[in-house]
Amino acid sequence: MSLTVYRKAHFNAAHRLYNKDWDDSRNQAVFGKCSNPNYHGHNYELEVGVTGTIHPETGFLINLDELKKIIKEEVEDQFDHKNLNLEVPEFRTLNPTVENIAVVIWNKLRAKLDTSYDLTIKLYETPRNFVIYTGE
Amino acid sequence: MSLTVYRKAHFNAAHRLYNKDWDDSRNQAVFGKCSNPNYHGHNYELEVGVTGTIHPETGFLINLDELKKIIKEEVEDQFDHKNLNLEVPEFRTLNPTVENIAVVIWNKLRAKLDTSYDLTIKLYETPRNFVIYTGE
Amino acid sequence: MSLTVYRKAHFNAAHRLYNKDWDDSRNQAVFGKCSNPNYHGHNYELEVGVTGTIHPETGFLINLDELKKIIKEEVEDQFDHKNLNLEVPEFRTLNPTVENIAVVIWNKLRAKLDTSYDLTIKLYETPRNFVIYTGE
Amino acid sequence: MSLTVYRKAHFNAAHRLYNKDWDDSRNQAVFGKCSNPNYHGHNYELEVGVTGTIHPETGFLINLDELKKIIKEEVEDQFDHKNLNLEVPEFRTLNPTVENIAVVIWNKLRAKLDTSYDLTIKLYETPRNFVIYTGE
Amino acid sequence: MSLTVYRKAHFNAAHRLYNKDWDDSRNQAVFGKCSNPNYHGHNYELEVGVTGTIHPETGFLINLDELKKIIKEEVEDQFDHKNLNLEVPEFRTLNPTVENIAVVIWNKLRAKLDTSYDLTIKLYETPRNFVIYTGE
Amino acid sequence: MSLTVYRKAHFNAAHRLYNKDWDDSRNQAVFGKCSNPNYHGHNYELEVGVTGTIHPETGFLINLDELKKIIKEEVEDQFDHKNLNLEVPEFRTLNPTVENIAVVIWNKLRAKLDTSYDLTIKLYETPRNFVIYTGE
Repeated sequence: MSLTVYRKAHFNAAHRLYNKDWDDSRNQAVFGKCSNPNYHGHNYELEVGVTGTIHPETGFLINLDELKKIIKEEVEDQFDHKNLNLEVPEFRTLNPTVENIAVVIWNKLRAKLDTSYDLTIKLYETPRNFVIYTGE
Repeated sequence: MSLTVYRKAHFNAAHRLYNKDWDDSRNQAVFGKCSNPNYHGHNYELEVGVTGTIHPETGFLINLDELKKIIKEEVEDQFDHKNLNLEVPEFRTLNPTVENIAVVIWNKLRAKLDTSYDLTIKLYETPRNFVIYTGE
Repeated sequence: MSLTVYRKAHFNAAHRLYNKDWDDSRNQAVFGKCSNPNYHGHNYELEVGVTGTIHPETGFLINLDELKKIIKEEVEDQFDHKNLNLEVPEFRTLNPTVENIAVVIWNKLRAKLDTSYDLTIKLYETPRNFVIYTGE
Repeated sequence: MSLTVYRKAHFNAAHRLYNKDWDDSRNQAVFGKCSNPNYHGHNYELEVGVTGTIHPETGFLINLDELKKIIKEEVEDQFDHKNLNLEVPEFRTLNPTVENIAVVIWNKLRAKLDTSYDLTIKLYETPRNFVIYTGE
Repeated sequence: MSLTVYRKAHFNAAHRLYNKDWDDSRNQAVFGKCSNPNYHGHNYELEVGVTGTIHPETGFLINLDELKKIIKEEVEDQFDHKNLNLEVPEFRTLNPTVENIAVVIWNKLRAKLDTSYDLTIKLYETPRNFVIYTGE
Repeated sequence: MSLTVYRKAHFNAAHRLYNKDWDDSRNQAVFGKCSNPNYHGHNYELEVGVTGTIHPETGFLINLDELKKIIKEEVEDQFDHKNLNLEVPEFRTLNPTVENIAVVIWNKLRAKLDTSYDLTIKLYETPRNFVIYTGE
């Protein structure tokens, strides 16, 4: 009997999209205003889903306080009020698209969760654009 | 050709989390303020998903009026404005965590739906914490 | 490594539900007030999910500007501020239930997307009723 | 000591915008796709605000069950799943813009509420367009 | 030049509505299922609005970290995961309707804010019922 | 008979908060992580409210297409995907707090609207922090 428990979190960050191997006109052609060299930003809203079984003694699948602490340390403390391109090491060579940010978050949380759990990341870049990544 | 139709519902209830086989300090350590013996409460928001095929004569997968009636009788009439620990028989011996409430709701609705349908339950305990249960 | 990128869109339309092979009393019995011959309407909110892999040069799974253009041409331009029964050819002989509208949208978008992508449609008829269709 | 208590409600309806004293081209120029003679529709979401003082015996400003009953009889039963132009008498000679619908709803509810209360109507035509009317 | 800055907060609590001077049947007649002696509960969502002028050196009307701290100490720490009737002194003799809770919160925050500010409280008992209190 | 019509819009931007007359430690003390010299960002969600009377020929208070065009030219084209500190002239010498951004937007829209209208700006910096400015 398997369920998924979800916890919401959020962080506000600046970023720009570009490929350093391309010249300005190609970056502009592909990324448009998202490649603004002065950066723009978003309120990223995150839903972390952890799949597992209910522990019969507690009725919990996972201790949410522990999950909140992991999300805070691995995501919020590292991404919130940051410039993703300049200040988050994973994006020094990786374009901080919402797709790539979701994969980075998945990898960071995956490393801290017991292997008995499955993990799903839903990440909103805006209320209108979002991604889901399940590690598959 | 299979779709899932979703219907929202809601109920407001009181509960506390605790394990009767544990002493107070262990209940406090595991459940924290959720184990307050005087209870606290939530607005539970429920999304019921029914998976099946479209009936060609109606264009409906399921008659939503019938689904609403089942949800009302099986969930809202039994849980709304209740103390889950004291007044809902399923939780006399089962800790009313959001995980266990979702499983109980799934079981109650499953028993009333035609076996040709699959069933998914999404249950929000708060706007920030929720679970999904599909019976698998 | 597979993700799903979602884009929201919306259209406002009138419709009525009925089966032309049935008499009025049977239409009324099955569809109730939804069969009002003078029509009623909805703000349909649409979430289009495209599943695929991240292109390493861009960090994009799909160019969202292209996806927005496809959604606009295939859905919004054809459904927005329309009477679905009278003005959208697919519903001349197909009852415009939210189930059938979701399938029609899926088919229209599927035909315009590269076959390497999988496609999911989530369509809200009201904030309380919605469907998901994945083409399976 | 004065508060405002709000209650939400909703109705789904078809309408078109036009001025019967204008020819088609002028209606098209002013109302655009909203003047489609075959109608389109919306999920109208309504917030009714009632301002008054707290009754010391109950702690209530107004009995919400009574307010819900008034909203149901005066608004939902008369507007839901209707064609506003054809089936709601107030709009036979009044263009059913969201502004005019809000004023009509205010007048209908005002007539049923004790004169000691003030009344505010917030009406969403879409999640992006809405009006507030306070009767002033 | 006056603005209002809003900050959201939330707390989950149990309560029941009743008047101790009435017998059970009258409590049941007026408060219905809300008078359940075993309690029910809600996720209360709070919006605190502070009206004032912008300080030219900071561009702030109020330091939001200070406002958050006041809300935490005066509201969340005292109401969250509590039984309002049994554990919050203000409701020992006051019926914890959403109207009265809003007034109590307003009074508690008012006492901690500089008198140069005006204060507005918006309190949701459910996503469908809420009140606004401005102290007037 | 006066109503307020609201239209939503949005823009994504980077900013930092600081006072150029202060040293780093004072900026850090007052603005905390919001003063990060590398910037962070937000999805700003805007509600523009225009108060006036209904024109009897149209049933409109204001032509929403015209209002959308003004909001696009005055706000979205100038703020979206920009660095507010570096690229928006109004914030060269003005700290881009949500309070100051709301006042700047109000002034820009006020200049483009007929003087017969009143104007209200509601600006969300995050889903949890927002301001209202009415020009008073």
